Amino acid sequence: METREKARLARQASFQLATIPAAIRNEAIGKMAALLKAHTNDILAANETDMAAARQEGISDVLIKRLGLNEQKLDDIIASLNDVQRLPDPLGKKSLVRELDDDLLLERISTPIGVIGIIFESRPDALVQISSLCVKSGNAAILKGGSEALHTNRALFACISQALADTDPRFAGSLHMAETREDIAALLALDSDIDLMIPRGSNELVQHIQNNTKIPVMGHADGICHVYIDKDADLEMALRITRDAKCQYPAVCNAVETLLVHADIAARFLPALPQTLADVALRGCARTQQHIACEAATEEDWRTEYNDLVLAIRIVDSLDDAIAHINTFGSHHTDSIVTSDSAAAERFLAGVDSSSVMWNASTRFADGFRYGFGAEVGISTHRIHARGPVGLEGLVTYKYRIVGSGNIVADYASGARAFTHKTRKE
Amino acid sequence: METREKARLARQASFQLATIPAAIRNEAIGKMAALLKAHTNDILAANETDMAAARQEGISDVLIKRLGLNEQKLDDIIASLNDVQRLPDPLGKKSLVRELDDDLLLERISTPIGVIGIIFESRPDALVQISSLCVKSGNAAILKGGSEALHTNRALFACISQALADTDPRFAGSLHMAETREDIAALLALDSDIDLMIPRGSNELVQHIQNNTKIPVMGHADGICHVYIDKDADLEMALRITRDAKCQYPAVCNAVETLLVHADIAARFLPALPQTLADVALRGCARTQQHIACEAATEEDWRTEYNDLVLAIRIVDSLDDAIAHINTFGSHHTDSIVTSDSAAAERFLAGVDSSSVMWNASTRFADGFRYGFGAEVGISTHRIHARGPVGLEGLVTYKYRIVGSGNIVADYASGARAFTHKTRKE
Repeated sequence: METREKARLARQASFQLATIPAAIRNEAIGKMAALLKAHTNDILAANETDMAAARQEGISDVLIKRLGLNEQKLDDIIASLNDVQRLPDPLGKKSLVRELDDDLLLERISTPIGVIGIIFESRPDALVQISSLCVKSGNAAILKGGSEALHTNRALFACISQALADTDPRFAGSLHMAETREDIAALLALDSDIDLMIPRGSNELVQHIQNNTKIPVMGHADGICHVYIDKDADLEMALRITRDAKCQYPAVCNAVETLLVHADIAARFLPALPQTLADVALRGCARTQQHIACEAATEEDWRTEYNDLVLAIRIVDSLDDAIAHINTFGSHHTDSIVTSDSAAAERFLAGVDSSSVMWNASTRFADGFRYGFGAEVGISTHRIHARGPVGLEGLVTYKYRIVGSGNIVADYASGARAFTHKTRKE
Repeated sequence: METREKARLARQASFQLATIPAAIRNEAIGKMAALLKAHTNDILAANETDMAAARQEGISDVLIKRLGLNEQKLDDIIASLNDVQRLPDPLGKKSLVRELDDDLLLERISTPIGVIGIIFESRPDALVQISSLCVKSGNAAILKGGSEALHTNRALFACISQALADTDPRFAGSLHMAETREDIAALLALDSDIDLMIPRGSNELVQHIQNNTKIPVMGHADGICHVYIDKDADLEMALRITRDAKCQYPAVCNAVETLLVHADIAARFLPALPQTLADVALRGCARTQQHIACEAATEEDWRTEYNDLVLAIRIVDSLDDAIAHINTFGSHHTDSIVTSDSAAAERFLAGVDSSSVMWNASTRFADGFRYGFGAEVGISTHRIHARGPVGLEGLVTYKYRIVGSGNIVADYASGARAFTHKTRKE
């Protein structure tokens, strides 16, 4: 089936999906879990086909590791379905209830967005996770996984499709898989039938999608995060947070890339750093190099996401300079200040234009599960719709619902009647 | 100054704007009102220049009427500034407060979006209104008005700029005017420095903008709204709502364009329609023509926004057919059902995929002021970010703010500490 036809069917299905009760959506997710379990052998066999091909093509060990499934990993995926099933229903929530008049009630109610396009790389668990989140939130979706995981994705998707078909005919046409590189180009052009694109993968993938579609994109290309050590920082805390933010998991988007140090504390703080970060390659500005031995950093470093055990260091003369550096060179993702001065902290938290701003905490906390969302759709550095770690909320929009008694605007325009605008819930 | 440079300055200014307290933002809006009043003569003289040129160029009476200012109209504009001043502060609102641990607090706080691009036609009041809403919500903005209102807009903008400069130096660079058609193309290309485009004007303007930018667009091109007369409708109410929805102000987006009538009630309802809508040109489907004399409607009519005293009429055999017609041919703006059957109403409200859905009320109620928002930024038929009538809320996003005590992720990953996730406010 052509991608355009899949999107058209998905749009048609989306109207039905919006009316399926939570119990039935959860039932479908439960059946997905059961079918994945029942088809464990088929799935692992399909994965072995992909793995063999990947080894033959000499794909990197990191990618091979991401691609690989075993029974334990599949059980984890199945367990995550049960987690999604238990999350509160994101639909039908009333965010506003207002009497416009005694006999005219306005409500704002959460609804599915409609049709989501998801493009992801290697990890087959993404296919299952995002499918379950779309079903939970009543959205139709078209999923394009990495070509290296094609057989695995097909086996997983067969279970998912079967679960939907076994549960309710209204799910028909709601989830589709796209398989080829040409399908991506087709998806990106379907701005009338796809409401939101979610890319999950490398910076290159996200940037490619952002640059080639008019469909709104939720995601982030770069994660250039900062920790700023203020002049009134607790030194031990500053070292501990810097180490956690850099080393606890350096390959992820919320790891720190540039450390900013106030000039007044540099002589006391910096000398301890090389030992604390013994496994990290340090690159410092000229003033940093007066305190510790390290490679020289250039402006290019301020704009670089290393995703590795490398840290750029810059000495700044003031809190304002730190904020300006972050707003200029950062990716508006996550930035943290370490200080005992609450006034300085408040200025930092207000002045730094990032989706997560932190005081005396590691940037690594910026994550949907750590924030308590129960599931993470992704992290967005866009300012529109959803920002920061995004849970199920990011997959819903709302509609206004008015219940009247034959009310007409002419009566209010003429002054015969007047709006009361009594807000019951906001 | 080049458009690119204006956008760069606006982005720089946006970082400062986010930190200006509400009292100062409101003070600036108050000064706008005072300066507009003090410069009434200059503004009306500038408007006379535009009006004279418009008359000479033979611009239509409708556009000339929109363009024209007088002292009363200007006083209304000034009064609207005072209304905006009195609205609650949209910034700093906490939509989530959650303890991640005893000493680690997460808050989600409303913030400005950043830099807004606004493109509007003829009406000079739009310049003042949108400027005040951007100042109120802490956003920087670049405003492009219609070239036929250039002198008026310049006179108004001079007052607005002066008011900002007189209030606080942190407003510097936050509001800019763009003047030429080339500036529009330049604006649309600045997706790294403009976060949201708001077009206000004709369908052609909105569609042009949607089709020529990667910047998210908030707005609506079409307003193809429906009233569906169910088989269990009160006939008198059905006629009253149909008349209001079509005739109370036919030129606007929330006026009805297509009337759907259940086959079972057609023989009783339709014969009364020509008299109730004596001033309206009716276009009916073949079955409608069996009941009343009217022009024949074609499928093209189902897709047409007349914005005029013209109404398309189609008989449908069921509620489901009505919903399917609306989801297929409508513009997902505002649709209403007239019925005494609550089960039918609930199915309609859930199944119609529009930003406002109504039961026994005129579609004309879909409006920010009638919904009690105090101001209307526009009406959006997009599903992302803001949907339906949009108040000040549409000009804000949020950031996550974490206050810790030196917390590091390694402690939670190792199990030494555990998240508590106690939600205080949601």
